[in-house]
Amino acid sequence: MADKFLSMKNLAFTLHSRGGRYRANTPDYLNDHTPKTIDMVFKAAFDLGKNVLHPMFEEMDRHPPRLADGRVRVHEGVRPMLKTLGEDGWIAALFPEQCEGENVPSYPLLCINFIFATANYSASVYAGLTMGAAKLILSFGSEPLQNTYLPPMLAGKWQGTMALTEPEAGTSLGDLVTEAVPIEPGKSESGESEPGQYKITGEKIFISAGDHDGVDNVIHLLLARIKGAPAGVKGISLFVVPKFRADAQGNLVDNDVTVTQVFHKLGYRGAPITGLRLGEKENCIGYLVGKEHRGLSYMFQMMNNARLEVGMGATAIATAAYHSALTYCRARCQGRNITAPKDSMPIPIIGHADVRRMLLFQRAVAEGSLSLILQCGMYEDILAKDPSEKECHLLLELLTPVAKTYPAEMGILATSTAIQCFGGYGYCDDFPVEQHFRDMRIHTIHEGTTGIQGMDLLGRKLTMDNGKTLVLLKQEMDAAIAAARQHPELSEMAGSLSHAMALLEKTTMALGAVAMEKGPDAYLADATLFLEMFGVLVIGWQWLTMADAALVALGKKGLKKKDTLFYEGKVHVARYFFSYEMPKMKGLAATLENSGQMTLAVPGDCFTD
Amino acid sequence: MADKFLSMKNLAFTLHSRGGRYRANTPDYLNDHTPKTIDMVFKAAFDLGKNVLHPMFEEMDRHPPRLADGRVRVHEGVRPMLKTLGEDGWIAALFPEQCEGENVPSYPLLCINFIFATANYSASVYAGLTMGAAKLILSFGSEPLQNTYLPPMLAGKWQGTMALTEPEAGTSLGDLVTEAVPIEPGKSESGESEPGQYKITGEKIFISAGDHDGVDNVIHLLLARIKGAPAGVKGISLFVVPKFRADAQGNLVDNDVTVTQVFHKLGYRGAPITGLRLGEKENCIGYLVGKEHRGLSYMFQMMNNARLEVGMGATAIATAAYHSALTYCRARCQGRNITAPKDSMPIPIIGHADVRRMLLFQRAVAEGSLSLILQCGMYEDILAKDPSEKECHLLLELLTPVAKTYPAEMGILATSTAIQCFGGYGYCDDFPVEQHFRDMRIHTIHEGTTGIQGMDLLGRKLTMDNGKTLVLLKQEMDAAIAAARQHPELSEMAGSLSHAMALLEKTTMALGAVAMEKGPDAYLADATLFLEMFGVLVIGWQWLTMADAALVALGKKGLKKKDTLFYEGKVHVARYFFSYEMPKMKGLAATLENSGQMTLAVPGDCFTD
Repeated sequence: MADKFLSMKNLAFTLHSRGGRYRANTPDYLNDHTPKTIDMVFKAAFDLGKNVLHPMFEEMDRHPPRLADGRVRVHEGVRPMLKTLGEDGWIAALFPEQCEGENVPSYPLLCINFIFATANYSASVYAGLTMGAAKLILSFGSEPLQNTYLPPMLAGKWQGTMALTEPEAGTSLGDLVTEAVPIEPGKSESGESEPGQYKITGEKIFISAGDHDGVDNVIHLLLARIKGAPAGVKGISLFVVPKFRADAQGNLVDNDVTVTQVFHKLGYRGAPITGLRLGEKENCIGYLVGKEHRGLSYMFQMMNNARLEVGMGATAIATAAYHSALTYCRARCQGRNITAPKDSMPIPIIGHADVRRMLLFQRAVAEGSLSLILQCGMYEDILAKDPSEKECHLLLELLTPVAKTYPAEMGILATSTAIQCFGGYGYCDDFPVEQHFRDMRIHTIHEGTTGIQGMDLLGRKLTMDNGKTLVLLKQEMDAAIAAARQHPELSEMAGSLSHAMALLEKTTMALGAVAMEKGPDAYLADATLFLEMFGVLVIGWQWLTMADAALVALGKKGLKKKDTLFYEGKVHVARYFFSYEMPKMKGLAATLENSGQMTLAVPGDCFTD
Repeated sequence: MADKFLSMKNLAFTLHSRGGRYRANTPDYLNDHTPKTIDMVFKAAFDLGKNVLHPMFEEMDRHPPRLADGRVRVHEGVRPMLKTLGEDGWIAALFPEQCEGENVPSYPLLCINFIFATANYSASVYAGLTMGAAKLILSFGSEPLQNTYLPPMLAGKWQGTMALTEPEAGTSLGDLVTEAVPIEPGKSESGESEPGQYKITGEKIFISAGDHDGVDNVIHLLLARIKGAPAGVKGISLFVVPKFRADAQGNLVDNDVTVTQVFHKLGYRGAPITGLRLGEKENCIGYLVGKEHRGLSYMFQMMNNARLEVGMGATAIATAAYHSALTYCRARCQGRNITAPKDSMPIPIIGHADVRRMLLFQRAVAEGSLSLILQCGMYEDILAKDPSEKECHLLLELLTPVAKTYPAEMGILATSTAIQCFGGYGYCDDFPVEQHFRDMRIHTIHEGTTGIQGMDLLGRKLTMDNGKTLVLLKQEMDAAIAAARQHPELSEMAGSLSHAMALLEKTTMALGAVAMEKGPDAYLADATLFLEMFGVLVIGWQWLTMADAALVALGKKGLKKKDTLFYEGKVHVARYFFSYEMPKMKGLAATLENSGQMTLAVPGDCFTD
């Protein structure tokens, strides 16, 4: 296995190279932390990734979770890992002081999770899920709920989950049928009139970390429908449903949550994805979080961040695969350049143009994605400081589907390209890239498929506030273009980004006309392609920003040779992106403007039979 | 598991819809077979695929080959399968009568192998490899070699392999070092002066079916360098190296071929890929095939067909995945169209535009690829009848890298899209598509990587006979365009193909200028992208041809409703291809014309460290 799985130098560069009108990586936005302490935290995270998570990377895949005697057995390293992550404060890091947290903002937190996920994606999700579930309890739960659940969750002793999906309600959450019946006051187990207790019955599937023996309890943040609630998304409530609940004496007793199966997955095998049955013995109690029927809106308030985390996970896997491929291509000798003498020695394959193209592609995807995710993290932090920052809110809304999807979709191609760099060896499990390829494939599915993200972008985000979102993005990009024009080396790329933005606006106008003429189904028919086109544009913006930052750095005196090469490399990758990736927008624009939404018109029974 | 893995109706349609100036599916080219007997053979192949190969599809993957006591153990179904394929004449089918074969031409043979590969790709390769190895012996081996090896191989009792790759010589075959030392006359085991016997020492890797317990012997067609031979590709000879050789008494004795490992692969797990050590005890004898130092040229004469077979395998996997996805999308209900009432019932997901787009994409790739492969098979058959058909030869040479690569590269996306159709279920092994996705990934690697195919196309095929290949292709395409213009419905597509061909010519000219100005390394730097662009064009041609054939069929009277829908469906997919796939050429052309071959210029040490 290749030891190198990320470049900390690149992470630091990306973190400190945000352009545009906002700058969040200043102490003002770091909640009393300083860039220096944050750097130290990153180093500690890297050590943990290297020494704890990464050594189990292959083993967790080769020995996936299994269901035995009703309990999910996971790799023996999971328990000590969660203990360490809890005890050393990593799970609590983002939480406020009253939770014994460090109030670490989104921006650096994404970096920490990124480091863990490059080391071992499956291992990194356990704590990530607990953080997400705990955040929901903190944001919307009552004080008793917070007091009961937060301390053991943040200590890594109890696992948190998000229990949304049902067999007949995956993408379509409004169709979920898990039921919650209020327990009459006085009839609750504790004997008192305790509001907010419900009997839960139903079934959930695809619940990540839905059960495992690396923790003492599992806390599901679960969506269900209170009996008699309105149909559709407006009748969904959020509950805390623990695997073990406290009885009247405060002892933990079984809460009637049964594991029905552990899914056998293509990748991401180190973490169990389970099916759950709730209330088989009519003895499953759920505790209402916040108000009745507001469950989906609570979830949606966490959704942007959850989607950023998915994009970050995909980015991390692509990053690790890239570093494996790079290491291999430098060491592996084969072939010669065409003009070299036939009897010359074989050269390292990084010397072949096509191999170099494959490496540039992977790097363009991985580092461009990281940059976009940190851009979004920055908007999150500005918003967290000042919720009235409406422009940041709109930009974050607009960019989230891209930050989720671009890394996920392009990550499939990037990890596939990593395999290609290894030739036949890449197809075998002697090297980690075949696992990266498998681990990657989940990200276009979970937290909303690519199709859903496309409809979200085109149908909701682009039309927010009378179309202000796109105007704001253009302002951000114009600022980046103006900055880049200070460097003559970047003037061509700057012009190219400007043209690309104009092309996107033209396509958007054309789709607007389709909406007026043919209605919303036609408007959204090619939404996935629009998202793809939009993604290329946005990552182009990020690369121009990074090239700008690299040229600024190159202008400084006394640079070490190594640093010079690094910054020059950044400019090369930006040029690669503008030469090899940006032109894809041309074809996508042509399809979007001329498809006539033919997919709507093809009768379903015209498919081969 | 979905039972449907291909459409026989579509296979028949594709087989009989070849356009252009040649028509090979006539009795003239069928070596005394008739279209009717060929049809019967296809039905028999389908039954075998359905009843013998397909039932082991998952099991062979879940219980991959393992090395035990020096022998590779494979699924227990392999031996009876090979026995059936041998006894019923499937392995001998393509061979002439003197081998008790049926002289089945390439065109229908590709269809038969396609049927088997849709049923179970891994299972289908065993016999395919034996056929290839036997063909080499028949074409270039001495009569004694033919008499010894062909009968048991064609009976399915002995396995054939192609043993080319070595640890330091994969893509770069010229660097292989396995050595062959002539055994002096009189010192051979049989005691007589038997020329052509050599002691073999060396190591091979990635040998498909390199050993297994489903046969009684394994016959390697092996490349090695005779001691003292010239360096590079001109010093390579071809040998028959059996696992067990006949001693002076005619008994089979061990021939000192050791299995060093069975590779653990991402997919394609039903077939063992092995490492082999030859002559560990200095007791491995190889029998020269043909003349000394001619080995690579013999292999290359089989290479076109081997590459077609790879493209066919990729096409088959994409086809099976498409049918799984189609079946699922018809049955699975979720969501509603945006304009439908909120309380309406969920619809089958094939009703969603984005799902339909995903199905159209898969079908466009799978059926377009099949069409191209059969086009190449047709050229092969015409050539086999009349080797002076130079134009067919040139077209076959030109199209082979595309027929190998388009299905392989696009097949990765097509099977990934099949997973996406299933949502989370697609990521789990409850459905076959995750296996299709894994099985697919080998095809851009074996029989020459995509990078190699690109250089072959641009560097060798396009420059053959002073560039005549592209002229001939244009003639073929012009004929298809002229035919399509007879249908007003196709005039737009016909015009679009014509423009696309012009764009490709323009790009080719631009690359020619690069070659003159900057030399061959620059000319070939973006060869992979050129191959991608060329592939889209060629598949567009195939779709226009199929749409034409479908409209001709639709013009006939008394069609059944089912057939009408099938032919209309074909036209829809053609329109999909022209609206959604052809525009990709625009971006590729822009990159090819403007990249400045930057990948050549990026210093290797500029990559992140």
